[in-house]
Amino acid sequence: MTTVTTRTVTYPADGLTMIGHLALPGGADRRPAVLIGPEGTGLNDFQRRRADALAELGYVALAFDINGGRWFTDPEEMLAHALPLLDDPDRMRDIGHAALDVVRAEPRTDPDRIAAIGYGTGGAIALELGRDGVDLQAIGTVNALTTGRPGEAARIRCPVWAGVGSEDPIMPAEQRDAFAAEMQAAGVDWRLVVYGGALHAFHHPPVDQAVRSGVGHHPEHAKRAWRDIVGLLAECMPVTASGEPPR
Amino acid sequence: MTTVTTRTVTYPADGLTMIGHLALPGGADRRPAVLIGPEGTGLNDFQRRRADALAELGYVALAFDINGGRWFTDPEEMLAHALPLLDDPDRMRDIGHAALDVVRAEPRTDPDRIAAIGYGTGGAIALELGRDGVDLQAIGTVNALTTGRPGEAARIRCPVWAGVGSEDPIMPAEQRDAFAAEMQAAGVDWRLVVYGGALHAFHHPPVDQAVRSGVGHHPEHAKRAWRDIVGLLAECMPVTASGEPPR
Repeated sequence: MTTVTTRTVTYPADGLTMIGHLALPGGADRRPAVLIGPEGTGLNDFQRRRADALAELGYVALAFDINGGRWFTDPEEMLAHALPLLDDPDRMRDIGHAALDVVRAEPRTDPDRIAAIGYGTGGAIALELGRDGVDLQAIGTVNALTTGRPGEAARIRCPVWAGVGSEDPIMPAEQRDAFAAEMQAAGVDWRLVVYGGALHAFHHPPVDQAVRSGVGHHPEHAKRAWRDIVGLLAECMPVTASGEPPR
Repeated sequence: MTTVTTRTVTYPADGLTMIGHLALPGGADRRPAVLIGPEGTGLNDFQRRRADALAELGYVALAFDINGGRWFTDPEEMLAHALPLLDDPDRMRDIGHAALDVVRAEPRTDPDRIAAIGYGTGGAIALELGRDGVDLQAIGTVNALTTGRPGEAARIRCPVWAGVGSEDPIMPAEQRDAFAAEMQAAGVDWRLVVYGGALHAFHHPPVDQAVRSGVGHHPEHAKRAWRDIVGLLAECMPVTASGEPPR
C-alpha cells in the first residue's frame, strides 16, 4: 500500500476562490490523474475521501470545488447556486478547466492521462469538459445525465460511463433517453447503468435528518457505483507498479 | 492458478438429451457454482470457455444445453425452436431445473451458493429459475430482458444484473422499460446496464459471414459485460482461497 499525501489547493474560478483537495499516491513518478466533481451542495469530506481512495489505487486525484469553499446545508440556497450553473455550460467549463489546470500543474500528473468523474453538478461539469473537446481518457458520472449544446457531444473522444437511480425524479426516464440519444448520435463510446430502486444522490450517505423528496441513500448501489467508477478508470487508465501505461 | 478439469455431462430435459459442459476448479473443497445459459443457437465452444474461465476463478461452472446438443446454423431453424420455448415459462424452468440438478449432484458444489447467468434464451431461463422461487445467490443476463407471469418476479430473492445493447432491435426501449417495471414492482434488487451502440448478441464473436439485421459483435462492450458478470459473482458469491464464504 502506498502512502497517500494530501494537500488543500486554492485557485480562482467562476469568480470565486475554490478550495480543492489534492491527493497524491506514494512515490515520485508520474501517474494518471482523476478530477472528482462534487454534488451541487459542494465539496465535503465524503468526496475528499474519494480522492484519497483513488490515490491509494495509484492515481493523482483532485476533489475539486464548485462553490468557493461553501457547503450548502440549505436546499434552497444550494438550488439558487446550482441551477443557474447547470444552465450555463461556459461557467461549468470554467470551473472544470480551473480544476484541470491544478492537476496539470502537479508534477506527479501524467498530462496525457487525465479522467474526469463527478456526481450531480460535478458530473455535469465532467461532461462539459468532454463536450469542450478536452483530451480526457474517461468520463464517469453519477446522477448527471445532462445534455449539452447541439453538436458538441461529438467532441467527446473517450469512453463515457453514466450511472443513475431508476427512481430518481430529478433524472427521469425522459432525461435518460435524451442523454442516451445525444451520446449515440455523437458516436460516443457510452454506457448507462440504471440502479434499480435508487433515488437521487443514492451514492451519498445521509448528511442530515431532513427528508428531501426524491433523495435517498442506497448503500448497496452506492458501493456498486463506486466499483463501477473504479472499473472504468482501471479500463481506461490502468495504473501499473511503475505508474507507466502497460505495453 | 488452479488446474481446471472439464467433463461433458448428459442429462434429460424438455424431452431432449442435453449435453452440457461442466468445469471444476482445482482442489477438493466445495465451491459456489454458476449455471451458464447459452443463446437460442445453442451451446458452443465460446460459452463452454466461459465455464472454464469461471472455474479458473474458483467456481464450479456448468455451461448448460437448451437444444439437445444441437447448434443451429440456420436462423429460421433456431427461431422455430427458440420462440416457442421463450413463450413457455414451464419448459424454460424444466431446462433450468435439469441444469440445476446437475450442479447440485456435483460433490464440489456448495449447494447453498448457486448463481445463474445467461445470454439471450439462456438468460431468460436464468430469470425463470428466479421467478420459480429457486434459491439463487445472483442472476445475471445479457440480451434477455424477458418479463414473466404476473406476480412471479416477487419470488426473486437475489440481486439481478441485466445488460443489453442500446441498439438491440430485439430488446427495444419498451422491453427494457417493461423489465425494469416488473423488477421494481416486485421489490427485486436489480440493475440494468445499457451498452451504447451495441446490437443484439454483441457479446458473441461473429460465427459466420452472414449478416443478420440487428445482430453484431461489439468487442469492447463484450469485454465489459463479461467483467460486469464476473463482478456480480464476486459481489454475491466471493470465492476465497479455501472456497469458504468470507466471514
